[in-house]
Amino acid sequence: MSIAFFGELMLRLSPPGRELLLQTPKFEVNVGGAEANVATGLACLGHKVRMISAVSDNPLGGAVIGELRRRGVDTSTIVSEPGRLGLYFLTPGAGLRASEVVYDRAYSVFARRPADAWDWDALLDGATRLHLSGITPALGHNTASAAIAAAEAAAAKGIPVSFDGNYRAKLWESWDSDPKAVLTRLIGHADLLFGNHRDISLLLGRQFSGDGADRRREAAEAAFAAFPKLQTIANTARHVDDADSHCVSARVDTRAGGYQTDEVLIAGIVDRIGAGDAFAAGVLHGLIESGGDAKAAARAGLALTALKHSLPGDASLFTREDLAAFDEGGLDVRR
Amino acid sequence: MSIAFFGELMLRLSPPGRELLLQTPKFEVNVGGAEANVATGLACLGHKVRMISAVSDNPLGGAVIGELRRRGVDTSTIVSEPGRLGLYFLTPGAGLRASEVVYDRAYSVFARRPADAWDWDALLDGATRLHLSGITPALGHNTASAAIAAAEAAAAKGIPVSFDGNYRAKLWESWDSDPKAVLTRLIGHADLLFGNHRDISLLLGRQFSGDGADRRREAAEAAFAAFPKLQTIANTARHVDDADSHCVSARVDTRAGGYQTDEVLIAGIVDRIGAGDAFAAGVLHGLIESGGDAKAAARAGLALTALKHSLPGDASLFTREDLAAFDEGGLDVRR
Amino acid sequence: MSIAFFGELMLRLSPPGRELLLQTPKFEVNVGGAEANVATGLACLGHKVRMISAVSDNPLGGAVIGELRRRGVDTSTIVSEPGRLGLYFLTPGAGLRASEVVYDRAYSVFARRPADAWDWDALLDGATRLHLSGITPALGHNTASAAIAAAEAAAAKGIPVSFDGNYRAKLWESWDSDPKAVLTRLIGHADLLFGNHRDISLLLGRQFSGDGADRRREAAEAAFAAFPKLQTIANTARHVDDADSHCVSARVDTRAGGYQTDEVLIAGIVDRIGAGDAFAAGVLHGLIESGGDAKAAARAGLALTALKHSLPGDASLFTREDLAAFDEGGLDVRR
Amino acid sequence: MSIAFFGELMLRLSPPGRELLLQTPKFEVNVGGAEANVATGLACLGHKVRMISAVSDNPLGGAVIGELRRRGVDTSTIVSEPGRLGLYFLTPGAGLRASEVVYDRAYSVFARRPADAWDWDALLDGATRLHLSGITPALGHNTASAAIAAAEAAAAKGIPVSFDGNYRAKLWESWDSDPKAVLTRLIGHADLLFGNHRDISLLLGRQFSGDGADRRREAAEAAFAAFPKLQTIANTARHVDDADSHCVSARVDTRAGGYQTDEVLIAGIVDRIGAGDAFAAGVLHGLIESGGDAKAAARAGLALTALKHSLPGDASLFTREDLAAFDEGGLDVRR
Amino acid sequence: MSIAFFGELMLRLSPPGRELLLQTPKFEVNVGGAEANVATGLACLGHKVRMISAVSDNPLGGAVIGELRRRGVDTSTIVSEPGRLGLYFLTPGAGLRASEVVYDRAYSVFARRPADAWDWDALLDGATRLHLSGITPALGHNTASAAIAAAEAAAAKGIPVSFDGNYRAKLWESWDSDPKAVLTRLIGHADLLFGNHRDISLLLGRQFSGDGADRRREAAEAAFAAFPKLQTIANTARHVDDADSHCVSARVDTRAGGYQTDEVLIAGIVDRIGAGDAFAAGVLHGLIESGGDAKAAARAGLALTALKHSLPGDASLFTREDLAAFDEGGLDVRR
Amino acid sequence: MSIAFFGELMLRLSPPGRELLLQTPKFEVNVGGAEANVATGLACLGHKVRMISAVSDNPLGGAVIGELRRRGVDTSTIVSEPGRLGLYFLTPGAGLRASEVVYDRAYSVFARRPADAWDWDALLDGATRLHLSGITPALGHNTASAAIAAAEAAAAKGIPVSFDGNYRAKLWESWDSDPKAVLTRLIGHADLLFGNHRDISLLLGRQFSGDGADRRREAAEAAFAAFPKLQTIANTARHVDDADSHCVSARVDTRAGGYQTDEVLIAGIVDRIGAGDAFAAGVLHGLIESGGDAKAAARAGLALTALKHSLPGDASLFTREDLAAFDEGGLDVRR
Repeated sequence: MSIAFFGELMLRLSPPGRELLLQTPKFEVNVGGAEANVATGLACLGHKVRMISAVSDNPLGGAVIGELRRRGVDTSTIVSEPGRLGLYFLTPGAGLRASEVVYDRAYSVFARRPADAWDWDALLDGATRLHLSGITPALGHNTASAAIAAAEAAAAKGIPVSFDGNYRAKLWESWDSDPKAVLTRLIGHADLLFGNHRDISLLLGRQFSGDGADRRREAAEAAFAAFPKLQTIANTARHVDDADSHCVSARVDTRAGGYQTDEVLIAGIVDRIGAGDAFAAGVLHGLIESGGDAKAAARAGLALTALKHSLPGDASLFTREDLAAFDEGGLDVRR
Repeated sequence: MSIAFFGELMLRLSPPGRELLLQTPKFEVNVGGAEANVATGLACLGHKVRMISAVSDNPLGGAVIGELRRRGVDTSTIVSEPGRLGLYFLTPGAGLRASEVVYDRAYSVFARRPADAWDWDALLDGATRLHLSGITPALGHNTASAAIAAAEAAAAKGIPVSFDGNYRAKLWESWDSDPKAVLTRLIGHADLLFGNHRDISLLLGRQFSGDGADRRREAAEAAFAAFPKLQTIANTARHVDDADSHCVSARVDTRAGGYQTDEVLIAGIVDRIGAGDAFAAGVLHGLIESGGDAKAAARAGLALTALKHSLPGDASLFTREDLAAFDEGGLDVRR
Repeated sequence: MSIAFFGELMLRLSPPGRELLLQTPKFEVNVGGAEANVATGLACLGHKVRMISAVSDNPLGGAVIGELRRRGVDTSTIVSEPGRLGLYFLTPGAGLRASEVVYDRAYSVFARRPADAWDWDALLDGATRLHLSGITPALGHNTASAAIAAAEAAAAKGIPVSFDGNYRAKLWESWDSDPKAVLTRLIGHADLLFGNHRDISLLLGRQFSGDGADRRREAAEAAFAAFPKLQTIANTARHVDDADSHCVSARVDTRAGGYQTDEVLIAGIVDRIGAGDAFAAGVLHGLIESGGDAKAAARAGLALTALKHSLPGDASLFTREDLAAFDEGGLDVRR
Repeated sequence: MSIAFFGELMLRLSPPGRELLLQTPKFEVNVGGAEANVATGLACLGHKVRMISAVSDNPLGGAVIGELRRRGVDTSTIVSEPGRLGLYFLTPGAGLRASEVVYDRAYSVFARRPADAWDWDALLDGATRLHLSGITPALGHNTASAAIAAAEAAAAKGIPVSFDGNYRAKLWESWDSDPKAVLTRLIGHADLLFGNHRDISLLLGRQFSGDGADRRREAAEAAFAAFPKLQTIANTARHVDDADSHCVSARVDTRAGGYQTDEVLIAGIVDRIGAGDAFAAGVLHGLIESGGDAKAAARAGLALTALKHSLPGDASLFTREDLAAFDEGGLDVRR
Repeated sequence: MSIAFFGELMLRLSPPGRELLLQTPKFEVNVGGAEANVATGLACLGHKVRMISAVSDNPLGGAVIGELRRRGVDTSTIVSEPGRLGLYFLTPGAGLRASEVVYDRAYSVFARRPADAWDWDALLDGATRLHLSGITPALGHNTASAAIAAAEAAAAKGIPVSFDGNYRAKLWESWDSDPKAVLTRLIGHADLLFGNHRDISLLLGRQFSGDGADRRREAAEAAFAAFPKLQTIANTARHVDDADSHCVSARVDTRAGGYQTDEVLIAGIVDRIGAGDAFAAGVLHGLIESGGDAKAAARAGLALTALKHSLPGDASLFTREDLAAFDEGGLDVRR
Repeated sequence: MSIAFFGELMLRLSPPGRELLLQTPKFEVNVGGAEANVATGLACLGHKVRMISAVSDNPLGGAVIGELRRRGVDTSTIVSEPGRLGLYFLTPGAGLRASEVVYDRAYSVFARRPADAWDWDALLDGATRLHLSGITPALGHNTASAAIAAAEAAAAKGIPVSFDGNYRAKLWESWDSDPKAVLTRLIGHADLLFGNHRDISLLLGRQFSGDGADRRREAAEAAFAAFPKLQTIANTARHVDDADSHCVSARVDTRAGGYQTDEVLIAGIVDRIGAGDAFAAGVLHGLIESGGDAKAAARAGLALTALKHSLPGDASLFTREDLAAFDEGGLDVRR
């Protein structure tokens, strides 16, 4: 019994400190992938999770599997096959210089795997939830079909599906895609959506005016109306002062109503990558622990995303003790 | 003729950058120990200091002695004996994640050394002052007895004693201790106390209401009343915005009156560990240089603690030139 | 056809992170020199530039030449001769501790080269502009004479000259110099001056009262009056909160009028060295691209100096794409 | 179904490169422990293994568990309890300077755990073999009793026991131990012993004269005579030229006869620690794969120990492909 | 006027020290590519060289161009286009563990560039020689056609062609290739071939028996007979003791006769990658400097390949002074 | 009471690993200087030593003093004055590439200090021996005069003088020196000379034929004849296989006879710099401990120089325990 995550696994290569890419000839390496980040976040909070993916059958793929195993993720549903592993290069920003990502994920084992090579009946056996994100279907025909097949298989088995929008225009534009159709089909199976008013606008073809909490609620209600299975919508609003200092508030809506946190100032950002995935992990944790409470979910999501900004790497590695300490407050040295 | 410091010496092991402990398999190593930090701070300002301690007779102990010698501390009063050296592991915080210390100092050579193994008559020979802190008596029976014996020997020889509260509840609670009794006995010999209204509350069993300067003065007067030998009390008040940004004001009280600095914003904190020890070194320096002036002491204490936050490692390594530059102000590049 | 830069090339040695010099026994190395920084900034923006200098004929000199070549600077006008390469040691500041530079550039190949060893006719062949700074004449008799000879040769050939004040009192005071006379002679040949009201006060022997934009304009007009060839004056005003956080506004004046940008907050400073050189590169770029427009120059100068603060090393390595992204704004991760 | 390993887990801290301990203030960290090294070696060869141990319930213990998990070891039989984690400090040798180990493992959670806290019935459930080494009983009364209880429980369940002598005089001498009695009792339950003629001499109280293969066979036969359950004995003979260059031959004896490999020259040694554990893993692998063949075991043991010398860290991380490549020979670059 | 090199440029990513790939999460980065290595070797010896290639139009491609420029290679004939840059991962061997290369070069900008996109007339303008290797045609149809077109264009212009066999079976086998036909066509245009008796066997479909110098001469004569334009053949013979210690002899044959060096022991190998490319650079240097003398070429080739083994990275960075020092001998410290 | 050493202190800057200088932009830093190396070697063996020198009054000079203090050297006889600190750049060799030193020590505080600024009466107060080397007088007139004054002052006070030839032709040739005259004058005051037959040939103007032990004895006898105060001569003979592997034998001659050790193979050399200084420290240690025994001196010298080759940095940091372990032999891991 574990939560299943389906998505690509990648190595992230980044320069030391705040250097530009290859300013000096070193890379620091992290294991990433939006869905794996959420899986990791939950595993470190003590939840049982499995990763469904495909990696190269060489030392790079082996390293990725080993790293997930280290974090407590069940990797027995990852296949290793000939081909290449997706990479991405991150140049961390600073001050008035934004972080930049250069992808080198085309032609990966994951992206090229035929949709019918995934045996969803076996892969989802014993799963308590399936988590997908909008990155997987954006990679191409194979993965779009695979994501839809996964969602349908979960629906057929009565396994709840959560979906994180993660809309990446560049990926969708790199092939003859129809993002609205694919996403609509996927979200049709979801009980939980991570997405903001812009994501919902894209799906429903309408804008939400007003601002702040009202707009966020209005968009949520429109999504609930459009997607009958949908029960919960979660998102953050982020104001970016500079690369090192953001303000974030979290919101979780159910059909019954919503809860929105105060905005917190997240200064001295160490690594912003994966902050959205940490939010998703926190919300899932909050929902599971509270039995579906919007406030608990929003608060746990905010806590985990806030903490993630302080941590190098793509994934939240925080424990329940860390969440409790965050709730307690007190940011001087703990001895 | 030198100022004597008695306390444990430890290695601090911390991850690179802002990583979690062992997120990658490296440790950066620093030499620490509250009293040694004060000694170092004063040595770098040109004062003659000696360290009284016990370390393991292996390369770790040797490295600690060598490092203190590098900083200009007289190490001829440190013994090397079989056993282990105390360690601690620091995970530096960032943003909304607090720094955390994991101690591995139990069973150390220092903690296990019998109280009667210290020959205070010899160790304090030629000492112009003895500095102790509340950490030493908190370690256990051996060190509590040794600290008291040291203070009594100093008193008997007419050597002034300074005492830094450094109250660490976890250490006191790890054995059948009576902190109030021990601390009262130690402070009874001190002419200089580093401690705030909470420390004094603990000693005297009463609370100080009001806020800010008034409460700090009221607590100081209560302490002067309770401890007849006490002439000076110094402390900082710290407001923590996040792990990287604190506000600090310094205050020094004498029986005649007190001086309190403005609060300074210390942003972009590099290493907060040892900031209190740097404050103590600055105050001692200010008192020595000014012949006991509260304002000079408070200002030097504030300067050294402010500077310490900018420096990796446990101890202030700043010189008189650095103090003078801090007083001058001007924070753009100096050429 | 390229812009010619004349000045010393140096290695910068600095400790890792925010350590003091030799706190641990490592140096990070960068290639610096005020004029080379401007040249680099322009080369990375796609301009053709050449460096006129002299380095040691050993692996250090070779490394400096190689690094400039890597950045796209034409190094065929750099000579390698027996002697030493200038060095400088940078201790980066943090928080309330200022950065400090210790020079070890005396007796360098560049400083000791006789003024008549430079063949300006050949070195300036095909040059579209000559850029000098106030550091070169401050180094001693040889370089002061060489700088004047360069400016005169350029003037004789009808090559425009730009001059960056870069007033360093310690250098001028290290020999029997007459800075006002030398600088006046040099600026007499310049059509473009980088300098603020303090630089102009020094040259003209008068103060400019008032504040902000008015004082900056008044000083510019006085300079235009004193130096008939001068057409453009550019400078920044910088307010330093602490070592990590500055506010900067840029201004460019022509005889027709001036343009001054809003002040921007540059927080989370990674490396402040070379920020002035990046400003000069940005202004030159803006002037070249716009055909001499003050607003375009001020905005490009501000952008490049703001970005430089986020980058380790002495020189701006930013491209036109980076400038465009800065103008667009948006400081969250770019994918 | 997995092979069970019982032993202490430790962190190894070592200086970078070939420095002395704390010559510069960095440690490289590895996860070690003789039995865990064997477990790792087998896991990387595709065998199912579990580790039975106790670690501190802090980030250090967590890191050790995570690292074993990364390597594919089942860690569900490791308990996390209050206390300290054993450490050791390695100064790697070079040339004519030998490597040195300084232990800091006293008072560890593992060493202090009461013998009756281990529930062998549960811990050995489904185990196909139990592997012990002579280090565990050498740590003190608790672990000696626990090791004996483990061996007896395994014997009672019909689970084969293997035992690696790993005689460490200093550990046995640190308490009122009777190594001969304890080891005799443990080996009485073993079907497989890793030990050479010196180990057997210690157990049997007699010397083996002659040299080379004859002495090794004679000692093996004496051990077979003394220990009726013993079926296989494996060992290496090592000649040390200098710290970087050793010659090693492997031998495996069964009651039917023995197989001894040629001596191989292992030059350019990267890390000699754990070479004996890698040998044990290789022999176990060879025995399992071949169904008990002495030659296969000796050759696999030699291969894995030879490869281990080329790898930083305590444990063999080699795969079956690596073993096959070693057997094929050919040491130029493989593309 | 410069020597032209045509081939793929790649980044090499390798772990620190002697670790396995991603044993710790860092990569050291080098710029490689067989032909670029030869170009670099010659540039560092003072020859004018140009690189003809295609890289990705992102910071990775920019870094590769910058690095070649640093080494003195003319990069104006490198195009930057959308797509990916080829990578390879090197695990350096040690002792009895061989180095391993994992390629991730499929789908690169270079490999996918249509053969007719290269304008050989322009690219070879002013070239004094064209150097190709067997890797380029092995990558696929595009590059095979491009290499042939390049050789034919050079032949048509009267530009001598040199060809380095660099036979990589895995690359040829990855598509429907006919290596013998392609290589025969390419070598038909060459006056200088880097290849040994195995390469020639492959081309001519016959074996060469005997051993040592005789076999090498016999194969050379067969090649001279088969390829009328061929004037010089160069190769090394390498005996591999272990990953750190090889013995190498160099041989250069002309139609008039051959010169073979003694075998030298190359121990303590730092980086064996690119040793063949350094040999080619040395031979080309020797031929150019001597006007075609076999002995001079063989000796320079041996010197440069021997030195390359001592240097991290893919390319020889040695100068004429280094070659002279190698010839002089004397391997103690030079001051 | 301590042994006094007079000589220049320098920083050594070297690239990481086996890279060329500035192949990547990092330097590793060590504190060096021939005489300080000998002082360090003796301090680590427990002897009291003082260093007489002059360093820059900036953080670099401070770091040098701190490092010597760390090693246990009395630094109270080092002055800090305005000026520059001598540097040198070391490119460590490997295999068939020799190590190279580039000096940047000209114009240093030490070299420029007037000979009469040294107050030998005070500096030698309480000295039990004065150790000089041939580097100091080779630096220029100032230091040549200072070295002679030091030797004469020592002689006048009855303090024995030891002298290490350390003949560096390049230094002597950089000014109008007369090395034979200066060295003859200095050695005239010495009772102990470190020098081989080539050094003695230079002094006496005659060659020593024969080979091995005979030639070494013949040269020693000639030196004894020429220098009446000389009682002991020590030297090593070194055969260099490649940069990583040398063979060394030590010899110590007295007027009564000589002792020559066997040659030892020193393979896997980590850092050859300072091996001669370690030899001098070992010989001095052996002479002091044995009361002047040639065999004890030669053996201790050989041991310390052999060990030094295994250690990064310029100086021997070995203890008496290390010497004892070397004598015992046994180069496998010590636990």
